[in-house]
Amino acid sequence: MAGTVPSGERKPLPASLVAALEERFADHFQRGDAVLGQYGSSETHFATMLPDAVVYARSRDDVVALVKLCAAADIPIIPFGAGTSIEGNAAPVNGGITLDMSQMDAVLAVHTEDFDCVVQPGVRREELNLHLRDQGLFFPIDPGANATIGGMASTRASGTNAVRYGTMKDAVLSLEVVTPQGEVIRTARRARKSAAGYDLTRLYVGSEGTLGIITEVTLRLHPVPDTISAAVCSFETLGGAVDTVVQSIQCAVPLARVEILDAKQMTAVNRWSKLDYPEAPTLFFEFHGSATHVAEQIETVKALAEAHGGSAFSWSNRPEERSKLWRARHEAYYAAVNMRSGAIGWATDVCVPMSRLAECIAETHADLETSSVPATILGHVGDGNFHVIFSIDPDAPTEMEEVEALNAKLVERALAMDGTCTGEHGIGLGKQDWLVAELGEAVEQMRLIKRAFDPQNLLNPGKIFVL
Amino acid sequence: MAGTVPSGERKPLPASLVAALEERFADHFQRGDAVLGQYGSSETHFATMLPDAVVYARSRDDVVALVKLCAAADIPIIPFGAGTSIEGNAAPVNGGITLDMSQMDAVLAVHTEDFDCVVQPGVRREELNLHLRDQGLFFPIDPGANATIGGMASTRASGTNAVRYGTMKDAVLSLEVVTPQGEVIRTARRARKSAAGYDLTRLYVGSEGTLGIITEVTLRLHPVPDTISAAVCSFETLGGAVDTVVQSIQCAVPLARVEILDAKQMTAVNRWSKLDYPEAPTLFFEFHGSATHVAEQIETVKALAEAHGGSAFSWSNRPEERSKLWRARHEAYYAAVNMRSGAIGWATDVCVPMSRLAECIAETHADLETSSVPATILGHVGDGNFHVIFSIDPDAPTEMEEVEALNAKLVERALAMDGTCTGEHGIGLGKQDWLVAELGEAVEQMRLIKRAFDPQNLLNPGKIFVL
Repeated sequence: MAGTVPSGERKPLPASLVAALEERFADHFQRGDAVLGQYGSSETHFATMLPDAVVYARSRDDVVALVKLCAAADIPIIPFGAGTSIEGNAAPVNGGITLDMSQMDAVLAVHTEDFDCVVQPGVRREELNLHLRDQGLFFPIDPGANATIGGMASTRASGTNAVRYGTMKDAVLSLEVVTPQGEVIRTARRARKSAAGYDLTRLYVGSEGTLGIITEVTLRLHPVPDTISAAVCSFETLGGAVDTVVQSIQCAVPLARVEILDAKQMTAVNRWSKLDYPEAPTLFFEFHGSATHVAEQIETVKALAEAHGGSAFSWSNRPEERSKLWRARHEAYYAAVNMRSGAIGWATDVCVPMSRLAECIAETHADLETSSVPATILGHVGDGNFHVIFSIDPDAPTEMEEVEALNAKLVERALAMDGTCTGEHGIGLGKQDWLVAELGEAVEQMRLIKRAFDPQNLLNPGKIFVL
Repeated sequence: MAGTVPSGERKPLPASLVAALEERFADHFQRGDAVLGQYGSSETHFATMLPDAVVYARSRDDVVALVKLCAAADIPIIPFGAGTSIEGNAAPVNGGITLDMSQMDAVLAVHTEDFDCVVQPGVRREELNLHLRDQGLFFPIDPGANATIGGMASTRASGTNAVRYGTMKDAVLSLEVVTPQGEVIRTARRARKSAAGYDLTRLYVGSEGTLGIITEVTLRLHPVPDTISAAVCSFETLGGAVDTVVQSIQCAVPLARVEILDAKQMTAVNRWSKLDYPEAPTLFFEFHGSATHVAEQIETVKALAEAHGGSAFSWSNRPEERSKLWRARHEAYYAAVNMRSGAIGWATDVCVPMSRLAECIAETHADLETSSVPATILGHVGDGNFHVIFSIDPDAPTEMEEVEALNAKLVERALAMDGTCTGEHGIGLGKQDWLVAELGEAVEQMRLIKRAFDPQNLLNPGKIFVL
């Protein structure tokens, strides 16, 4: 069931391990309640689960040392980036040591001629783009939150730009990983493609820290387009907005971003970000390319929007206007949760084939209309991926159950349409049963890999599946 | 060492297995010498290795039945597509049963709205594109040979269009696979992206038939561009041609195809395909997009070519002219091998970061100039990927050694430049030592997966690595 926490055995840290960690890590090893409290809660509805200690990694050697000490003591390690994951992906369900990677935040190299860079896993995506801004390059993957690159690789993050630039599966060229045995491996060289053996890079991407600890990431970058135009367009109906996107994709318009927000989400955004957009189903667009190519894309999309009840486009072409627009989009989660003060958020996520998207969103919208829990729909419709965000009253005990049922209905609908239970949030704790519903016996192959790589179940135990 | 054949134990087929296979497969089970001979040799220089029998699969159930019978008798299975692989990837080194998938050649579904299709693994890429031609869609991956989709998935094929459309890693949305235990699994749903668990799709893509037998492939398709323009441009120097490509990529021109052929390769192509191109370093280009976008791309690339000693562009805009041009490119391997009559071909393949490509090609060209074995350079330079094709006299015993040494030097050079020992041909038999040189301890992680999935070493044993 979504939200169920696997019952793991929690073993206290042995005194010998504590002594060894104090000696090795000094004040980069912490056990105080105030510190632990920062690592026990998450962005969404999962119960607080505290680790027994936190270690702050400053180097690959720190990671190797920690893995060897924890392996010897049989104590779990939970790699932790920025804590922005929303399916309980970094919750210490069996206690153990949370390994905070955020201090490994160096950009190690930028190869402008090769359109790639090498970073430590604690680099955050916004800081990476600041670092790159004078070099005519950017890193496109944008899950909304200012996540770490290591965390984004671990959850196979995507977001607003994925329709054009792909997901972390496409962005990661190579990884340096510390195995559960404390070996340091590199999964690939820096060539843009390779047929050399099994694709370990793609295996670690999306493995949610259960197979190894990422200590270095080589990322593909893209040239900053000559022209970037962003626009907002509101629609009479949600279906009109979805159909505009589906037909734009079918016309091969290389949309760089296309986000849908339903009317309720727009109300929330206006209130939270102090804006005054029409409170109607809305698309946020971004177009990239040469001036003539962007003009051509816009012409096609405007005609399609008009044919589907779209308003005039409201343009944001200057960088600061665009930032404002996308900041409003990125704050949509907080805007939606805070429709009610003191509410708990629950964000779910499905992805379906484009041909089923309009139907999937329409049926979901109808369900939400009958719900007593306020909820919004928004998402990366160019991929067939959308979210529902619920704003749950923590003092109303039936609301959590109601949301569980609505979430179940949504995921079942997506699976019945040959879609997936998660386009980008990952499985974590929240979608383990749905993973089995989606892929059946294939999950056993995943377990074989986990057992082969990590027979002690040392790394982020209890995530994706219970062994 | 490249070209070394692992010494495997060869176990005769037990009589009970032969009886069971005859009963189950009737005349789709063959043991005659004439039939076996078709499966023992390969496109390149590897010694002939015969299987003990051939089974022709007609269905997933056939594959499951064969796997169960062979697992019980401990007899290897070598999945086989069109036999176009060139690193000995489908050679039956330990004997056993070659499983010919070419009769499973149905296109099961085309979802035009979703830009995807579902095919059996024996469908060949040219036949798939014939099937799609009235639907405004095409399948872009083009390794030259008319390979099967299953074989292309197994070797992570790419080819001329990869610079724009990616490789099989990007083209495969989902696989149906029969495991070495005879279980049928599906690796993903049909959504365009997913964060649901480990990326089994990408694990099987490129695993060269060692982890499972592919029985169904869901492929991403692309809309046929409004405008397709192809051009040939010759250069004063090889370096001028390479620099034109590198700078075009750096200017973010979305080249659909860009192939380099050195002067010797052009001589071979002219002779083989009865053409009269200038016998100088040459680029073959293809541009895709709207008319204005293609015109814009061409303008940029023409200016760059001119600045680097390029000739005027010779255009092929009509489909039949384009076919002729690309047929000449696709026949380049045969053209090169047949520079000497009766010669044996050896095609090797490396891929390096773009910033090192000019240097890598220049140094390789200088090596080849001193060689007594005729050799050409050609490749997919937009990816940093190129090939050397040697035309070896089988009666000159030193030539094979000379080629081994040149190949070793090339691969070492690519690795020293942070490149890979194979951009697209795979490891097979030929590059096992180079895989270890390239990825070191990471190869042990690959072995862990192979042992976990296939503890009997039933599927295509001796490929990628020796267990």
